[in-house]
Amino acid sequence: MNQALDTLQNITFNELQEGDTATYSRTLTEDELILFALVSGDVNPVHLDAEFASGSPFKERIAHGMWSGSLISAALATVMPGPGTIYLEQSLSFRRPVMLDDTLTVRLTVLSKEAKARVVIGCEVTNQDGKQVVTGEARIIAPTVRMSLPRPKLPRITIDY
Amino acid sequence: MNQALDTLQNITFNELQEGDTATYSRTLTEDELILFALVSGDVNPVHLDAEFASGSPFKERIAHGMWSGSLISAALATVMPGPGTIYLEQSLSFRRPVMLDDTLTVRLTVLSKEAKARVVIGCEVTNQDGKQVVTGEARIIAPTVRMSLPRPKLPRITIDY
Repeated sequence: MNQALDTLQNITFNELQEGDTATYSRTLTEDELILFALVSGDVNPVHLDAEFASGSPFKERIAHGMWSGSLISAALATVMPGPGTIYLEQSLSFRRPVMLDDTLTVRLTVLSKEAKARVVIGCEVTNQDGKQVVTGEARIIAPTVRMSLPRPKLPRITIDY
Repeated sequence: MNQALDTLQNITFNELQEGDTATYSRTLTEDELILFALVSGDVNPVHLDAEFASGSPFKERIAHGMWSGSLISAALATVMPGPGTIYLEQSLSFRRPVMLDDTLTVRLTVLSKEAKARVVIGCEVTNQDGKQVVTGEARIIAPTVRMSLPRPKLPRITIDY
């Protein structure tokens, strides 16, 4: 998937082929953990409190499982098929915990094309050791019109630790 | 579900009964939209650019679908069953768009208790008009030990619009 970093370009239903793949990567920083807690309201101490987490089955702070889900959604919305995609369904199996500084890669694979521009996409999220952390399937309506857009700029944020 | 706002208290596998319900509500602010874009990397302009969104099928900016998913996860992790819950699987059907200032309510219902503390929980997210926006099912491992914890405090953040 080659695209200029400052442009969002989609892939239309007609262009998508079964077997096509695309990837999207992000690293879990401390900021990301805090922001996900803020935006969801999930303040479970297993995500936020190192001392509490040391007594949990995972022994250290872990990511919110749905953060990995949000990366799948970002991959669908910005990489393949990209802008114009309408999200219908998502299944998620959480297979391994994600720790601070882990780098996750979402791999999307077009599994089947259906009537009315519906597409089923396999979703696999692996960590930097190549281990699966989340797997699932998405069902979407793919865009039918080609779009190429400037990538919106986000405001800066400051976290007062 | 009555609990002091500054305490997180869980419900153990033994205490959970089929048919038990719990709710969790949040309102979609401009800040929430921006933070979800930041934390996921999903900068699709349908979420961020009012002018672009006015030309979309939804006519205005919409929430990231996975924001509703994150509220389900927060409800499981902080309300029922609460701390100690391990997330195994989640299915999500995105049924209606969520707009700025919408207030969503997640309603969890215990559907079945299985071996090894596994529990299937029905998840329905409705907006302030009582319309379903997301439905799905979660499969979790419920906590077996009762916990009552101080609710972690989050740092303040500033968004430089």
